[in-house]
Amino acid sequence: MQDCIFCKIVNKEVPADVVYEDGDILAFKDINPQAPFHILLIPKKHIPTFFDMEEGDGQILGKLHEAAVQVARDFGLTESGFRLVSNCRAGAGQVVFHIHYHLLAGRELNWPPG
Amino acid sequence: MQDCIFCKIVNKEVPADVVYEDGDILAFKDINPQAPFHILLIPKKHIPTFFDMEEGDGQILGKLHEAAVQVARDFGLTESGFRLVSNCRAGAGQVVFHIHYHLLAGRELNWPPG
Repeated sequence: MQDCIFCKIVNKEVPADVVYEDGDILAFKDINPQAPFHILLIPKKHIPTFFDMEEGDGQILGKLHEAAVQVARDFGLTESGFRLVSNCRAGAGQVVFHIHYHLLAGRELNWPPG
Repeated sequence: MQDCIFCKIVNKEVPADVVYEDGDILAFKDINPQAPFHILLIPKKHIPTFFDMEEGDGQILGKLHEAAVQVARDFGLTESGFRLVSNCRAGAGQVVFHIHYHLLAGRELNWPPG
């Protein structure tokens, strides 16, 4: 999508601090980190929100979770763990309309989650 | 797993306010709701944490997301949206060691998410 900042990152038109990449998934550091580790994981396919998922997109989200585990291992979070968060629609805090997961770690994570 | 409360809910040995069920996924109301809508979505398969995912489990998590969309539609959250949160390991707030996603909606959701 021409105007999607995350698609531009996927296409290397906009720089990002990439920490993981495979055929379907990209992960990079959030530019407004809310924790010592704050990584964004996105499908390379432009899916605006969970409500826009099509046949096969669930499988891509499965791969996103496998990538999250890989990123967590790479950052040494195997024991301390991490929180995954995704906002769907502006009312829930979604700012970029390309599905993304926040991986947060490295500090105490409180409850409720926002 | 014999001592897992979520497995007991799957097996109907422990009651829960179930809002969605299919062959792979179960969704029910959280007993300590943190928002007007607070649903837990779990795979029926006992997977303690994301780090314990095996071949094929990613696909189950994809189905979990499709179920989340269905639950959100059923609750009329198509426009207002929702937040999905999953804690991995005790240090991130995981209390029950059977993968689960919190679906939160119906109030302002702040940032950072905990």
